[in-house]
Amino acid sequence: MADAGGSSVGATDPFEVAELDLGRRARRGYPEAIYCEGKTPEQVRTIAERLRDAAADGTTSGAVLFTRAGVEHAEAVLDILPNALHDKTARLLAWPPDPPAPSGGLVAVFCAGTSDLPVAREAVLTARFLGRETDLVVDVGVAGLHRVLARRDLIDRARVIVVVAGMDGALPSVVAGLAASPVVAVPTSVGYGAAFGGLAPLLAMLNACSPGVGVVNIDNGYGAGHLAAQIAAP
Amino acid sequence: MADAGGSSVGATDPFEVAELDLGRRARRGYPEAIYCEGKTPEQVRTIAERLRDAAADGTTSGAVLFTRAGVEHAEAVLDILPNALHDKTARLLAWPPDPPAPSGGLVAVFCAGTSDLPVAREAVLTARFLGRETDLVVDVGVAGLHRVLARRDLIDRARVIVVVAGMDGALPSVVAGLAASPVVAVPTSVGYGAAFGGLAPLLAMLNACSPGVGVVNIDNGYGAGHLAAQIAAP
Amino acid sequence: MADAGGSSVGATDPFEVAELDLGRRARRGYPEAIYCEGKTPEQVRTIAERLRDAAADGTTSGAVLFTRAGVEHAEAVLDILPNALHDKTARLLAWPPDPPAPSGGLVAVFCAGTSDLPVAREAVLTARFLGRETDLVVDVGVAGLHRVLARRDLIDRARVIVVVAGMDGALPSVVAGLAASPVVAVPTSVGYGAAFGGLAPLLAMLNACSPGVGVVNIDNGYGAGHLAAQIAAP
Amino acid sequence: MADAGGSSVGATDPFEVAELDLGRRARRGYPEAIYCEGKTPEQVRTIAERLRDAAADGTTSGAVLFTRAGVEHAEAVLDILPNALHDKTARLLAWPPDPPAPSGGLVAVFCAGTSDLPVAREAVLTARFLGRETDLVVDVGVAGLHRVLARRDLIDRARVIVVVAGMDGALPSVVAGLAASPVVAVPTSVGYGAAFGGLAPLLAMLNACSPGVGVVNIDNGYGAGHLAAQIAAP
Amino acid sequence: MADAGGSSVGATDPFEVAELDLGRRARRGYPEAIYCEGKTPEQVRTIAERLRDAAADGTTSGAVLFTRAGVEHAEAVLDILPNALHDKTARLLAWPPDPPAPSGGLVAVFCAGTSDLPVAREAVLTARFLGRETDLVVDVGVAGLHRVLARRDLIDRARVIVVVAGMDGALPSVVAGLAASPVVAVPTSVGYGAAFGGLAPLLAMLNACSPGVGVVNIDNGYGAGHLAAQIAAP
Amino acid sequence: MADAGGSSVGATDPFEVAELDLGRRARRGYPEAIYCEGKTPEQVRTIAERLRDAAADGTTSGAVLFTRAGVEHAEAVLDILPNALHDKTARLLAWPPDPPAPSGGLVAVFCAGTSDLPVAREAVLTARFLGRETDLVVDVGVAGLHRVLARRDLIDRARVIVVVAGMDGALPSVVAGLAASPVVAVPTSVGYGAAFGGLAPLLAMLNACSPGVGVVNIDNGYGAGHLAAQIAAP
Amino acid sequence: MADAGGSSVGATDPFEVAELDLGRRARRGYPEAIYCEGKTPEQVRTIAERLRDAAADGTTSGAVLFTRAGVEHAEAVLDILPNALHDKTARLLAWPPDPPAPSGGLVAVFCAGTSDLPVAREAVLTARFLGRETDLVVDVGVAGLHRVLARRDLIDRARVIVVVAGMDGALPSVVAGLAASPVVAVPTSVGYGAAFGGLAPLLAMLNACSPGVGVVNIDNGYGAGHLAAQIAAP
Amino acid sequence: MADAGGSSVGATDPFEVAELDLGRRARRGYPEAIYCEGKTPEQVRTIAERLRDAAADGTTSGAVLFTRAGVEHAEAVLDILPNALHDKTARLLAWPPDPPAPSGGLVAVFCAGTSDLPVAREAVLTARFLGRETDLVVDVGVAGLHRVLARRDLIDRARVIVVVAGMDGALPSVVAGLAASPVVAVPTSVGYGAAFGGLAPLLAMLNACSPGVGVVNIDNGYGAGHLAAQIAAP
Repeated sequence: MADAGGSSVGATDPFEVAELDLGRRARRGYPEAIYCEGKTPEQVRTIAERLRDAAADGTTSGAVLFTRAGVEHAEAVLDILPNALHDKTARLLAWPPDPPAPSGGLVAVFCAGTSDLPVAREAVLTARFLGRETDLVVDVGVAGLHRVLARRDLIDRARVIVVVAGMDGALPSVVAGLAASPVVAVPTSVGYGAAFGGLAPLLAMLNACSPGVGVVNIDNGYGAGHLAAQIAAP
Repeated sequence: MADAGGSSVGATDPFEVAELDLGRRARRGYPEAIYCEGKTPEQVRTIAERLRDAAADGTTSGAVLFTRAGVEHAEAVLDILPNALHDKTARLLAWPPDPPAPSGGLVAVFCAGTSDLPVAREAVLTARFLGRETDLVVDVGVAGLHRVLARRDLIDRARVIVVVAGMDGALPSVVAGLAASPVVAVPTSVGYGAAFGGLAPLLAMLNACSPGVGVVNIDNGYGAGHLAAQIAAP
Repeated sequence: MADAGGSSVGATDPFEVAELDLGRRARRGYPEAIYCEGKTPEQVRTIAERLRDAAADGTTSGAVLFTRAGVEHAEAVLDILPNALHDKTARLLAWPPDPPAPSGGLVAVFCAGTSDLPVAREAVLTARFLGRETDLVVDVGVAGLHRVLARRDLIDRARVIVVVAGMDGALPSVVAGLAASPVVAVPTSVGYGAAFGGLAPLLAMLNACSPGVGVVNIDNGYGAGHLAAQIAAP
Repeated sequence: MADAGGSSVGATDPFEVAELDLGRRARRGYPEAIYCEGKTPEQVRTIAERLRDAAADGTTSGAVLFTRAGVEHAEAVLDILPNALHDKTARLLAWPPDPPAPSGGLVAVFCAGTSDLPVAREAVLTARFLGRETDLVVDVGVAGLHRVLARRDLIDRARVIVVVAGMDGALPSVVAGLAASPVVAVPTSVGYGAAFGGLAPLLAMLNACSPGVGVVNIDNGYGAGHLAAQIAAP
Repeated sequence: MADAGGSSVGATDPFEVAELDLGRRARRGYPEAIYCEGKTPEQVRTIAERLRDAAADGTTSGAVLFTRAGVEHAEAVLDILPNALHDKTARLLAWPPDPPAPSGGLVAVFCAGTSDLPVAREAVLTARFLGRETDLVVDVGVAGLHRVLARRDLIDRARVIVVVAGMDGALPSVVAGLAASPVVAVPTSVGYGAAFGGLAPLLAMLNACSPGVGVVNIDNGYGAGHLAAQIAAP
Repeated sequence: MADAGGSSVGATDPFEVAELDLGRRARRGYPEAIYCEGKTPEQVRTIAERLRDAAADGTTSGAVLFTRAGVEHAEAVLDILPNALHDKTARLLAWPPDPPAPSGGLVAVFCAGTSDLPVAREAVLTARFLGRETDLVVDVGVAGLHRVLARRDLIDRARVIVVVAGMDGALPSVVAGLAASPVVAVPTSVGYGAAFGGLAPLLAMLNACSPGVGVVNIDNGYGAGHLAAQIAAP
Repeated sequence: MADAGGSSVGATDPFEVAELDLGRRARRGYPEAIYCEGKTPEQVRTIAERLRDAAADGTTSGAVLFTRAGVEHAEAVLDILPNALHDKTARLLAWPPDPPAPSGGLVAVFCAGTSDLPVAREAVLTARFLGRETDLVVDVGVAGLHRVLARRDLIDRARVIVVVAGMDGALPSVVAGLAASPVVAVPTSVGYGAAFGGLAPLLAMLNACSPGVGVVNIDNGYGAGHLAAQIAAP
Repeated sequence: MADAGGSSVGATDPFEVAELDLGRRARRGYPEAIYCEGKTPEQVRTIAERLRDAAADGTTSGAVLFTRAGVEHAEAVLDILPNALHDKTARLLAWPPDPPAPSGGLVAVFCAGTSDLPVAREAVLTARFLGRETDLVVDVGVAGLHRVLARRDLIDRARVIVVVAGMDGALPSVVAGLAASPVVAVPTSVGYGAAFGGLAPLLAMLNACSPGVGVVNIDNGYGAGHLAAQIAAP
């Protein structure tokens, strides 16, 4: 059996041409993250090696995040970058493992239910590694309003509030109705059948009856943490 | 030009066979309503005549409702039943115009915004003509929670609460979280593009994070009022 | 490898802040249920411990339900609460295992086919543990109408009827057309491809041509049983 | 201003190339119908002229149908074929105006509600002009089952049953459950918001829990009548 | 741990009330089939036992089909009814294993591609066990029209044609355009992403530009075979 | 004909209970806006009167916006508040007509095409009346990248960038890839059929491959301007 | 009433910044077209003036197209460019009115039905004005295969074939199965309800079982003609 | 247990009738490919045997492709055709393993991210085996525009450009805006929840704001490579 080598079929070896966007920090002020889902562990390992080498020769600096990392992805990263921080709940790795000293405003993260926690932690860790102070509150769904109302001082102190919720996606409307600060809403895929994998809270959040809500993709804690970090930038 | 008369093409004249379900009150305890949308004014007029005649000869008794009545439908009904009650906001007619004396529990209707009012009034009038006491509260959306919280005594007094909302459809979750009584949720087609004609609040309500919520069709104030009247029956 | 401990990244340990809504029975009259899907067995175990402790010190009273419990969730619960009732078909646990003495009206549950049975049993058990008398009828789909028609006395006796059906979702319309009592309709995800995971019966039930039908989420037997218990409350 | 004539831009005049499928009766045994929606009245008039000429010189024979004909389409047809039959409810014209003598089995058409009548009549007239005996029953929705059950002898006599229904689309399941003959189900766009223009009954009919149901397009009375005529062919 | 026994929670044992519709052959002329998907192997075994007993005491007669039978379902059936016919491709079992002598017209089954074969065989076997002669043709997709055109004599001989296709669902339009007989179209879930689990061919078939096409559910070979058997009945 | 007066049917006059949320500025720092679509001109007029009176007696202060105002809505507002600013393109009215002196950071608004201009202007005016400096750039779609690239200094100067686009919704990804500041993306309903009323750009924006994008509802220029004003707050 | 002038609210006059992409012909080889839908007649008029002026001073050269032009759009264009070609069926204007001399390969356009003609003509005219020879064939739907098969020599001569079809969208599969050349498929919004505005043929075309089909947006004759012109370029 | 043999139930053995379209190369100029998904390994093996035999006796010539081949499919092919080329990333096998000498124009393949690589390689290999020269570029997403802009000479040299992208699907618009050549766009199923399995990039690509884009099915690298090879044919 012949191997589909590059030269024999005209396909260049992809990793000869793959371009890590190492200049992104310079251009945008924030590093690129490696989205692991859909990549093989070998591809993730290769990327980790390049990042290690780029850090060693000073081509890049600062933390890099590996998101949506399954067990095998994480093993590949830790094999190359053994001191990386690994948060299993958030399925996220960060390297170097120490986040920068916080600057800018406070990023508050409200998590409607325990099932939404992986997404909420991904948001927290992302914002933290992009340089913001964070505060996480769990189990504050609208089914028990007193739990949200008891957090009004946090709502008032935050420069931006990330709200993570599945099911009816009602929490961002309620929080935004109480807040002067902008709200970043993250729908999750938690819920019964007619949640349709997060479609229900996604639509609800896009239709939030309180203005001041920007929505990110379903289960996209990374995107929410990134956006929040930019909003709360110094 | 030949007319498509029944005998010439084998199609029986539909109104020879149309069967008004005049026995429904006896069978289910509640009268049938005439859904006008999709019917011609002439068809509605014919139905009104039959109802008038059935009342005259005692075949049926009690109020009948005409729902989703456009201007021409209403004119047709009022031409035959001139003393019918006509609520233009709710696009509803009732005949005879006086509702029965209330019995059973209280039906509270919460309406999120002024734009939801036609649907809310349809629910109120339906429940009222099916024999319940009703109480309507308008403009209590979750963007200003204090407005809902100020109505807790009404929430406590009601045997059932109808909640009418468009956009994010968050109000039923909040109300159900405060109530011991069941909630009937009605999504409306009010809102920006991604409300998709009421799909967003419909899904949100089906995914209400507070149990105790039953959902009816988009803009279906009649169905909500009917269901609420049954729940609050003596 | 560093662990993503709370203090090092600013994320508070979620279980320090998770708030079980132990006051819900006082506020709404019904206890909170623990939705296990999306939670780790460890999280469920922690919650079971807290509930055991809260019962021990009198902070809460009455039954608590664990819904959508997989095998590992069930093991975690039974490890802490060994005398809990476990219904494998319904994937539900209840603790303490004895339901309260029934009060209020009768909750009848109609189940269209044997494949819908897990959802129907979840509804039955929920209503039963919330204090209602229940009666379950299985295999009464509209393909053989005589089976529904043979249950007319049960339809007449019930204070509320839960109807569980997949496929065409036609049963609630038929039952509601025969009943004076309200119907709670539960679509299930049973069926061929174009059922689209329960979307077909969901839409059919929302469009029931008989008024008096309130719909809950796909496969949501818990929600249906809860709503029915509220409707049939004394 | 220049006119976009064929030769100047390379576009051949469409009506020089349009090919009426006049041989279809020979090939399939049934004539082609002219679907008027989306055609200009002028295009319909041209087609009527060709059909008149083809009949005059014997190129074709038998009835031709114009379906979905708006007021202006009808005027164009009647201008050329003044003795055509025009059924305004069904928005259908037939020429010559007399249907053939019936042969084959009986086509029964069940119409759930008065609002579904235009579609039901289109089915009746199509089957009648394709050579079948027809029988139409109106207002037999499942909300009042006794109306369907009273028609069991018609169900037994028919060679095929066309069932026209909007909303929950439950009627075909019920009828098929009572019938030995096949059922052709036609969803209509009648109903409240979550009927989504006929999607709800379409899905319900595709998921009919009684086997023996074939579904045609939303509001497609012509297609249903044609299919039924083929099934009931001698 | 207490078991959720029937009496302790008010839930009747479902199999005490489950009603096999043994009278269906008498009522509709065709036996009920057992849809295995969503049932446990134990439930299927219980049903097989009842059918065996009903046949033994003469309560029912003729073949019964078990459809969508997974490996464990099949083992349960064969354990009770060891001489049942088992077609693994079609995931179908039939008992007794010999189909009745054919009567009525010919049912032709056209299968677009090899991947559609399981559905096509389910249709063939169903029609065969309901008493019809069948003829199956495979790999006649429209990408090579000559393969369809070469089967014109079969198209002419058939009383009804079942067309099974995934992807673009174009084959029913082409076949119906060549046939005097009715076409039963079965979309399959075969294809690339934008087939959306059979939605693409389903919609295409509902919109077939040739009249004379009735559509059944995605992958529903059983339903297609049943409908075809009814159409081709003597 | 009887009028459906409040007392006769138990429905309280809605405007007796409608609660303008006049305290919202105090609570959230921004005034409530009046969404006119779905309200009658009479309702809008009544609201305008109350706002005029509230301003007169000092109950409220600062600008109020009327959004999605049709011609008749605008006439009603201008009749009561004749010096209101009216932007016909944006279908927006503001009163008092002079925006506050700008504070905070710059809000840049990028508009992909001329057809998106109404939404972009609504965003500009909203941000301007909520107290921000704004800069609008039109016709910078990705079909001609040089137009975006020529605006890099504006991208660098802005504290937040609102990007308004229909069709493929690609512009936010491109802009966010060039920017350190957060992007608020607004899909519009501009485009050919498969844009599905804005669904295509909505999904594209939610899936923006550059992090740092928060999405608001389709055509919701008001929401985008409000969110941007909060992000760029001092 | 104050006017929302640019300086008073910080919104720059949009037409001061609108950038016609006059360099597109130089960059891509094809001119920009003006998509009129969603633009006001005044905006279209302004653009026509700029194009006239740019042609006069030599900034641009060659034909420009105005697509999706309603009656008022066309009047605005013809007022400024009175000798423009106006094809009312295609809703397209071209200026200067004479297309370039054809070069490259032949673009064949197959139109399934007369109702698809506006889209097909838009494709023809676009390809013709972008410099290709075109040939249009109408009414070649798959319901009568002989009409397609009779065009095999045109299929063989064409360098690219544009296929325009609504309903089941089956024609591109059939044509591609006969052709060596690539096929550009254009779904149209023609058809009954379950065509869902062109979704059905769109999905069918994306799932064409014959390879060699590229799909453009629903009703997008302009896009199809443009793509075909590029494929058939010299 | 009886076996469902062909003769006993009237079902002809499918492989007696399966027709490999061996004449397709003669008819269309390109060989048929074997789509393995949904076929059993045994079926694939049988097909491989026939192809081997047809090549041996000269019935067919040139390369044949097996696409979407899982591990077991590949083993079956390699067992019969041991020298076949097997590209595991693309899940594709080709036999004979050497592609033809390239002719015609260059096919450039742009791949937005590493996760899209399997689809991109499938396109490259298909075009290569259909006789074209290919060039593959990876990791050129719009989040870092400089990477696309750096490839402008490749864009200028290519006769056709295949663009493979998931998430927002923005890359085809950007590339087409820079190119004179046509673009074949392939959406992939890579991305967060609201990508909905590739729906988001699919819709974005169909709505590309740059003309000159033809779209193929989600993840359909084979179809893209085939179409590109046809466009770039000599």
